[in-house]
Amino acid sequence: MNNIINIAVVGLGQIGIYLLNELNRKKDEIELKTGKKIRIVAISAKNKNKKRRFRINKRIFYSNPLKIFKEKKIDILFEIIGMSDGISKKIVETALKNRIHVITPNKALIAKHGDYLSGLAEKNKVNLEFEASVAGGIPILRTIKEGLATNQINKVYGILNGTTNYILTEMEDTNENFNKVLEKAQRLGYAEPINPKLDLNGFDAFAKVRILSALAFNNKISKHKCIMEGIDNIDLKDIKIANQLNLRIKLLGISEMINNKLFETVHPCLVSKDSYIGNVNGVMNAVIMHGKPVGENVLQGEGAGPGPTSSSLLSDLLSILRGNIKKPFGIPTLKRKKVKPFNNNNYTNSLYLRFEVKDKPGVLSSITNRLAKYKISVKRIIQTPDKKNNKATIIIITHKTTEINAKNCLSIFKKNNNILKFPTLIRLYN
Amino acid sequence: MNNIINIAVVGLGQIGIYLLNELNRKKDEIELKTGKKIRIVAISAKNKNKKRRFRINKRIFYSNPLKIFKEKKIDILFEIIGMSDGISKKIVETALKNRIHVITPNKALIAKHGDYLSGLAEKNKVNLEFEASVAGGIPILRTIKEGLATNQINKVYGILNGTTNYILTEMEDTNENFNKVLEKAQRLGYAEPINPKLDLNGFDAFAKVRILSALAFNNKISKHKCIMEGIDNIDLKDIKIANQLNLRIKLLGISEMINNKLFETVHPCLVSKDSYIGNVNGVMNAVIMHGKPVGENVLQGEGAGPGPTSSSLLSDLLSILRGNIKKPFGIPTLKRKKVKPFNNNNYTNSLYLRFEVKDKPGVLSSITNRLAKYKISVKRIIQTPDKKNNKATIIIITHKTTEINAKNCLSIFKKNNNILKFPTLIRLYN
Repeated sequence: MNNIINIAVVGLGQIGIYLLNELNRKKDEIELKTGKKIRIVAISAKNKNKKRRFRINKRIFYSNPLKIFKEKKIDILFEIIGMSDGISKKIVETALKNRIHVITPNKALIAKHGDYLSGLAEKNKVNLEFEASVAGGIPILRTIKEGLATNQINKVYGILNGTTNYILTEMEDTNENFNKVLEKAQRLGYAEPINPKLDLNGFDAFAKVRILSALAFNNKISKHKCIMEGIDNIDLKDIKIANQLNLRIKLLGISEMINNKLFETVHPCLVSKDSYIGNVNGVMNAVIMHGKPVGENVLQGEGAGPGPTSSSLLSDLLSILRGNIKKPFGIPTLKRKKVKPFNNNNYTNSLYLRFEVKDKPGVLSSITNRLAKYKISVKRIIQTPDKKNNKATIIIITHKTTEINAKNCLSIFKKNNNILKFPTLIRLYN
Repeated sequence: MNNIINIAVVGLGQIGIYLLNELNRKKDEIELKTGKKIRIVAISAKNKNKKRRFRINKRIFYSNPLKIFKEKKIDILFEIIGMSDGISKKIVETALKNRIHVITPNKALIAKHGDYLSGLAEKNKVNLEFEASVAGGIPILRTIKEGLATNQINKVYGILNGTTNYILTEMEDTNENFNKVLEKAQRLGYAEPINPKLDLNGFDAFAKVRILSALAFNNKISKHKCIMEGIDNIDLKDIKIANQLNLRIKLLGISEMINNKLFETVHPCLVSKDSYIGNVNGVMNAVIMHGKPVGENVLQGEGAGPGPTSSSLLSDLLSILRGNIKKPFGIPTLKRKKVKPFNNNNYTNSLYLRFEVKDKPGVLSSITNRLAKYKISVKRIIQTPDKKNNKATIIIITHKTTEINAKNCLSIFKKNNNILKFPTLIRLYN
């Protein structure tokens, strides 16, 4: 690598523009730490004249990022557009084929095409770095690849999405309903203004789970169908009831090797208010790992936003400038194994079930009888009448049961006149 | 670097022997991750025939570690003896001068001679790695050097000593006094069996603070006189009272830049039971950093023991085998600045003061008058009589005041007939 490094930044949204400013401000520090002088020689976005937080150098602006490869000599390219396919993939592919190192926070791209792209990077002997794709400013990928290298990790889980964690925390704190808090999150820039769906339905957290699994267990990125649930069905009522039970609802991403099979999931969990994970609130993210011989390791930090994301993008840049490791997933892609999926039907949890029922005799027993038939034993039951409307809410906390058993058991409640809606199910984290 | 790497392990105590076993077990994985084959070609300890947890290869055993340099070609040496000077320093020096990479968990050595040794490593173009010297299995040094590279850190603090944290937790949980719990800690291997002083008096945590400061703020390791207090004067009574106040006592190490001056300290703190740091219990360590732009970052993990320590030693090994960064403190030692010390007298805290007094009129007012004279205002006061012995305990929580003011104010209580012992002072963490 020369001592002068040419950089291109493609994508000048909130993150891209913040990064550009950081790169300009920290040139001297970067030279001190790596011995390399960086030069930003090309920037690209759709709209040259859009109003931005920091000024851009329009003389190096490209509306078509693919033109950069033809006109400029680039050493390192930042892809900060953010789609899993289309122009994002095209740019990364082209860069790697041209022996240009790539840095990206694009979890959708890596979760979908990470195996192919890492092979391409290795073949062309350049880096593909994506620290910012998981848990924002928390250097979790580097920690797995380097800080905990050679530990046998059997579980990684945590709060991987700042948007949903903010919404859950805010609902509990303000007693406002989901839609109202979502609007607030959008106003504050914590949720996407136009289409927040990918955060809310668990998709974003799930992409991060896939990347974490591949790194922690040295496997190919899995494509298995998994249990993926977001917070879009969480009701303020459940948050209030959880509160009374000394519990709190958190959207957890979980990846675990169970009998040499990979289990990945994202769903809301009820966790103890006294637990560590129950106290990671607001936009914070946290990742917990179990490894041998290190024991339990926890990392916590801000999970989103231009500042934390830029911190991770710059750590990737310094790693490349220092000539550090090349393998995007820690070991050669060819050596990463395909791993068999754990059968989701056998996933086992205690359950929180909320039934909204007509307040009349026999309804409770019809529920408990059904549970008994499926050998789901009840740990706790709370019935709260709503006399005025002749209704009642029945909360049941069960002992452990499998997904398939719970599904079969509950199926009957779809067509029961005394049960006003299909019961809400939230798993307890164990 | 060749593809075959010769390794020497000097020091075969609990950690050395565990590491040796890990190296043997993980040869294939290390080759997969780095492309290098490791060979252990020399081991050294005082006593060849001591009973050890794992068997050693006596054909490569040296009673005198310095002989290794003459008889074997070594690429990487592990120094795991653990003294700040003497043979530990001699071995590390000799290795670096012979262009041998060094890995060590020896915080006393690095805190005292780290600047000199890092200069030596840089001059000879080899690595000096010491991830295991701070916070056991938590990859905190790598995180500062790499994962958070280019962040402007202004504060690093946390629980840096597992022994003392275990003792404090155990005293609270069992209501047993300091000496009894210390004995238990020694039986369980959490405290040094013969001389546990360096853990208990804060010295061990302080060495870690010095190393963290140097990395976080890019300064030379400071030699300033600082406030260093351990837990050896913590009474079960204080733990019980803290408990009633919803507080908990934690031994914190703190390093902070205040107006471009370095403030380092280790002392017991009263922290809220509802705070994150108040819930890091037992042998766990935790480090919290404030950085720009990343925000707050937290790392938590097991702080001591052969497993976590080996995890960090192996991460150092992989870093070297992958050819990663060379500068022990992230930037060239010559560029690391000397930094001015913050004046300890100006350190400002709310204080918890416990007075043991004769139960007679006028005693309380003599205390409050004295505080008033020094403009130390009282936030809370709790007097508990011990009628039988005609004594009383007075707890005072003050508003913020400086170290020097508190010291001057309290000095009078050394010679007061009504005050049975010099008051216990514990700072509140703010």
